[in-house]
Amino acid sequence: MTIVTTPAPWKDAGRSPEERAEALMARMSLPEKIAQLYGVWVGIDNTDGEMAPHQHEFTALPVPWDDLVKDGIGQLTRPFGTTPVDPVKGAATLAAAQRSLVTAGRWGVPALVHEEILTGVAAWQAGVYPNPLCWGATFDPDLVEEMGAQIGATMRRLGVHQGLAPVLDVARDLRWGRVEETIGEDPHLVGLIGSAYVRGVQSQGVVATLKHFVGYSASKGGRNLAPVSAGRREIADVLLPPFEMALRAGAGSVMNSYSDIDGTPVAADVTLLTDLLRDAYGFTGTVVADYFSVAFLQTLHHVAESPTDAARLALTAGIDVELPTVNTFGPALVEAVERGEVDLALIDRALRRVLVQKAELGLLDEDWDPEPPILHEADPVLDGPEVRELAGRLARRSIVLLHNRDAALPLAPGVRLAVVGPRADTAQAMMGCYSFPMHVGVHHPETGMGVEIPTLLDALRAEYDVTYAQGVPVTGGDDEGIAAAVAAAAGADVVVAVLGDQAGLFGRGTSGEGCDAPGLALPGRQEELLEALLATGKPVVLVLLVGRPYELGRQIDRLAAVVCGFFPGEEGAAALADVLSGRVDPAGRLPVSFPRDGGNQPATYLGAPLAQKSEVSNVDPTALFAFGHGLSYAPVTWGEVTGSGAWTTDGTFDVTVRLRNESGRDSSEVVQVYLHDPVAEVARPVQTLVAARRVDLAPGESRELTLTLHADQTSYTGASWRRQVDPGDVELRVGASSADIRAVLAVTMTGQRRFVGFDRVMEASVV
Amino acid sequence: MTIVTTPAPWKDAGRSPEERAEALMARMSLPEKIAQLYGVWVGIDNTDGEMAPHQHEFTALPVPWDDLVKDGIGQLTRPFGTTPVDPVKGAATLAAAQRSLVTAGRWGVPALVHEEILTGVAAWQAGVYPNPLCWGATFDPDLVEEMGAQIGATMRRLGVHQGLAPVLDVARDLRWGRVEETIGEDPHLVGLIGSAYVRGVQSQGVVATLKHFVGYSASKGGRNLAPVSAGRREIADVLLPPFEMALRAGAGSVMNSYSDIDGTPVAADVTLLTDLLRDAYGFTGTVVADYFSVAFLQTLHHVAESPTDAARLALTAGIDVELPTVNTFGPALVEAVERGEVDLALIDRALRRVLVQKAELGLLDEDWDPEPPILHEADPVLDGPEVRELAGRLARRSIVLLHNRDAALPLAPGVRLAVVGPRADTAQAMMGCYSFPMHVGVHHPETGMGVEIPTLLDALRAEYDVTYAQGVPVTGGDDEGIAAAVAAAAGADVVVAVLGDQAGLFGRGTSGEGCDAPGLALPGRQEELLEALLATGKPVVLVLLVGRPYELGRQIDRLAAVVCGFFPGEEGAAALADVLSGRVDPAGRLPVSFPRDGGNQPATYLGAPLAQKSEVSNVDPTALFAFGHGLSYAPVTWGEVTGSGAWTTDGTFDVTVRLRNESGRDSSEVVQVYLHDPVAEVARPVQTLVAARRVDLAPGESRELTLTLHADQTSYTGASWRRQVDPGDVELRVGASSADIRAVLAVTMTGQRRFVGFDRVMEASVV
Repeated sequence: MTIVTTPAPWKDAGRSPEERAEALMARMSLPEKIAQLYGVWVGIDNTDGEMAPHQHEFTALPVPWDDLVKDGIGQLTRPFGTTPVDPVKGAATLAAAQRSLVTAGRWGVPALVHEEILTGVAAWQAGVYPNPLCWGATFDPDLVEEMGAQIGATMRRLGVHQGLAPVLDVARDLRWGRVEETIGEDPHLVGLIGSAYVRGVQSQGVVATLKHFVGYSASKGGRNLAPVSAGRREIADVLLPPFEMALRAGAGSVMNSYSDIDGTPVAADVTLLTDLLRDAYGFTGTVVADYFSVAFLQTLHHVAESPTDAARLALTAGIDVELPTVNTFGPALVEAVERGEVDLALIDRALRRVLVQKAELGLLDEDWDPEPPILHEADPVLDGPEVRELAGRLARRSIVLLHNRDAALPLAPGVRLAVVGPRADTAQAMMGCYSFPMHVGVHHPETGMGVEIPTLLDALRAEYDVTYAQGVPVTGGDDEGIAAAVAAAAGADVVVAVLGDQAGLFGRGTSGEGCDAPGLALPGRQEELLEALLATGKPVVLVLLVGRPYELGRQIDRLAAVVCGFFPGEEGAAALADVLSGRVDPAGRLPVSFPRDGGNQPATYLGAPLAQKSEVSNVDPTALFAFGHGLSYAPVTWGEVTGSGAWTTDGTFDVTVRLRNESGRDSSEVVQVYLHDPVAEVARPVQTLVAARRVDLAPGESRELTLTLHADQTSYTGASWRRQVDPGDVELRVGASSADIRAVLAVTMTGQRRFVGFDRVMEASVV
Repeated sequence: MTIVTTPAPWKDAGRSPEERAEALMARMSLPEKIAQLYGVWVGIDNTDGEMAPHQHEFTALPVPWDDLVKDGIGQLTRPFGTTPVDPVKGAATLAAAQRSLVTAGRWGVPALVHEEILTGVAAWQAGVYPNPLCWGATFDPDLVEEMGAQIGATMRRLGVHQGLAPVLDVARDLRWGRVEETIGEDPHLVGLIGSAYVRGVQSQGVVATLKHFVGYSASKGGRNLAPVSAGRREIADVLLPPFEMALRAGAGSVMNSYSDIDGTPVAADVTLLTDLLRDAYGFTGTVVADYFSVAFLQTLHHVAESPTDAARLALTAGIDVELPTVNTFGPALVEAVERGEVDLALIDRALRRVLVQKAELGLLDEDWDPEPPILHEADPVLDGPEVRELAGRLARRSIVLLHNRDAALPLAPGVRLAVVGPRADTAQAMMGCYSFPMHVGVHHPETGMGVEIPTLLDALRAEYDVTYAQGVPVTGGDDEGIAAAVAAAAGADVVVAVLGDQAGLFGRGTSGEGCDAPGLALPGRQEELLEALLATGKPVVLVLLVGRPYELGRQIDRLAAVVCGFFPGEEGAAALADVLSGRVDPAGRLPVSFPRDGGNQPATYLGAPLAQKSEVSNVDPTALFAFGHGLSYAPVTWGEVTGSGAWTTDGTFDVTVRLRNESGRDSSEVVQVYLHDPVAEVARPVQTLVAARRVDLAPGESRELTLTLHADQTSYTGASWRRQVDPGDVELRVGASSADIRAVLAVTMTGQRRFVGFDRVMEASVV
């Protein structure tokens, strides 16, 4: 007798993911089905290599791990991202957990593993890339895609299948603590860069997660999780386009926003999560809950009467997976389905999406290997030279020179520096709140292992004669500290003031999740410190390491130079030193406006005419440094700007710019095209970015650059609430920033008004 | 031969207004029709008694007055409110103008005359009542109705038919300069008080104008005219209810908001101005354009291509009358109608409403008298004792005692006072930007005539030993001024610091139209002055004369007392002195919250759970002084609070409160009932005012007060976007302020979910 083994149909890689999902679903019990719809928050430590369920007190799961795995687990939540653990040990522990899942369950289904990946995988010893505002500042999607691919590769090595990034929220109120996680205030830029990140990550066979769908950034007063007052048009024309673009790039998962928009919590909003996301956009991946947001329907929004009621609302709206752990999708939900109070079809709809994704990721394959690749590597380094190189290249590409009076920068060789300020001598200044070492420390207290993150003080000391004084901490401080900083300045030729934010979580910082600002004055006594330094009469170069723009209107006329690094990551210090010394030309352009006065929030450059300076209000919202602004040591010379094509409402139009680097050093330009619509059916932003392209130019080099615009990029949500392209006059404003327009092309679009489907918009958006 | 004269049908008071309007319309030429749809801005001066067309450069009218009157004029704009003119002379001039209209035109139709009336008729020598925030602080609709009736009577005496008040915008962002014109931040209170004002004004046979319909107060960043991001539910549940209540009270006219809401300018919004206002609410009066707002469709919102295009959009949306003068409704519109580019039916629709209103006002009557009644009066005084008495009573009723540490107030007899601050020695401190003498001065520079408005310094000097120092002006000032104030404080027992706003227009002030604030710190150096006074160690009593709340969190623990008068009008000084001395118990309750920190705007007490203090944001929006707060020198003692009735979703419920004045002096209480809905379909405000009642109590008096609530008052806009009453649990929180709840009544509403028509809501709203 010959025994022929054929794989079970759901394990057969020769079948379609949909077919495999159906085959498995048909066999599963209700508890097994629901178990696929939640995550379990696990943690790994360095002690024994066993999976230690790291269940928090808020879980609704009543059973120990050994019982838990019998029904299976949909997701494992953040195995690496909680405590510092040797990644090889961690991967081995994870492998053991996956093996137990595969063997204990009836169907051999492993968990999908997710981690935070915003500035690199949240794992001990993994590299720390610059924060998203830096990505936006590069205006360089290819570079961000390269970073995404490195991050995706690291995920894959560690056995992580899904990463919780990118953040596609469009910055709307600079007081919000999570502005540091955004790519900027313009939907086109956020979509362009965010899509590149998604393509990069997913090129490694893992899943990126678009978050937070949608509205989170528009909370009232910039307070985290506060209600959102946005109307439908603002949502459609400002907040949704980055998601549309990134979905077009193939993103596999979407995470809901915590927010309520005009009273409706997104986690319970069938219009957004199903009618729009599924039916209009055609998205077929998974929607995962932002952490605890299903439970929040009961506990924070007060729209659900019980955890099960919250689960029912979320499933109905279109959430597929409860994260981070079981609060509402537990045994009570099983009972509610059995009693007929929650429709089994809702469970099956979510389950189908989860299983299709697991099939697509190979997790259902007969030969799926629970051992992450890092376990087989001879040199399992997560922060190797290629990571360092790319993190540094991205940092250099992103640093923005905001202001440079009398060519105060670059610093002359041999100049004596007073380096002053709370952000000069700390590695934390280089990181935002979603960078892993921010929370566990740069070096592990026991093992000493970790990530090397030099400080700016380190980098400047390496090449200059430096006197250092902290002056004041980020918050607090005293007069003595300020006096010591002034004394340090006295003996120097130039003062480098390194000011900014301490990123942190929930109030343990001045930027980051839950670290909202009441206003945009520099935190603590840093403005006082800056004033004291300016009073010395020494030239003051301000270096900002910040998670949001701050108001500099009171000092700008007296500052010698201002450089903004946002949070530039593990190679940020070297990159900043390169810019300050002049080895590298500052190449970044602002992805967020710097206000002159911070009292006008919410305000971004994307305003209708009446959002601009006007005679009817004494408050002038004009930016001090506009969206897209950034200086260069060797400004590129612009030649003629021309347009070509007869533009129809379904056609394309070419904008050609001639650029020449007349300097003796490398330079670059970011050519920006803004749309201005003189008359529309509704009040539109005075200008909105429709195309941008970075160009590098060697000394003496000339380039002719052509950007092709599709008519869809002029579309907006009209009076009928549909997205439309109007015939008639438009202006294409071509410039080096939104406030530095070099040429205006007046174009008349011919043809009929055309209503634009989402596919069309998405196609045009990623041109 | 006997000649029998019968009146023309439109002049026949025996026919219905509609019939008369139709009869007249049938005879009118197109230019005559359109002439009824605009205002002409006229001015009267003291020189010659003739009507002097005061056309601004922005008018589109090409003809002189004598030609203009041949076609007629729909409205005369602000004849009294531009320059100081003897009201009798002015009325005579107006009469001459009306006679010329009646005789020059073919149909004998006079103009409808409108004026600003926010704090009294904007006419020289007319009384100045307290500002609307004071009305809100009284929580006393009967008193406000009495004021409205006095204002209406003054209008009638002067030949003014329509007054441009009340402002029913619900305060949403305290930075907005026009917060001073609002009645407060709660829609129920705004509607209750605003309706009373309307009833009062219209009881005199003149028309009140509800403004600004709708959304104006929710502009981004609190900047005047800036775009509004509100969604449909916020509009329906917060911004519209005061209009619904005042329409129910019979308001004859509505003025549009300048705003664009989510991109749609209200002046071009058929949904708001016709579908909602006409079809759903059943409003039959006139919609008049806020000044220049039709032209703004082209010049500011950029949704119209030409003035005529703007006119077409506005007429289509439902605006009937262009004010203040002709910008878009001129000869070009006549031509456009003749060419068929603008539908004649739109002209006729608006015209019908205008003529019906003129008929209702008696302007079409055969025996209509162009002479205003004041011309026949023996003693034509506009600010007589009865006006003074009522203005004073309202001021006394509205002053809010915010804080009174160690019973610092009332001031002891014979105490030596240092009266300090920029608002102590100026009559302007008593007035907001829509008070007429604010702009022309209290006394006329030529005639010396005007309104007597004593200062607080005057009033305190009359009974105390006073040293005065200004300290600093409202904005600006120097160290010497502060030092002088400190010196004045040194010799006093108590410091009375009188701080606040200078009201003004378009930047010529710190509060008022176009005088928005970047933050809520006291203007100029007034906080520094306050700190210097506190540093003297003397008890400091702060008197605020302000158009908006300011943040006092940094000083509150050191202040002896805080009294807020807002802008209390011509009798404000005496009223404040009465409160400070203890002759009068402070009776006002806050209609707007005072924030602890002003960096959290927009924020009012009307927030969903996540708009409150939460663990997920470090910014605490909790008010320093909550909505409804106000102390008394003789607090009323609360007895049992009980509820009675089996509340169905179509029924009523009684809340009974037993109160006793155990003190030896008159006192009063404002009993406030807030609704809390534990679980709803959408995120609702944690609490919202549903009933309030002021009660006066003589020494030793007891009262049992019953407030009857209708189920409709629990209604909200649900998931289906209709207004609904839900069965289930609600809490009625009964207290002395939104932060001082004395009893919670948990009530279960029985019955079925019921959808509420606008009529029902309006009926319940004015219970």
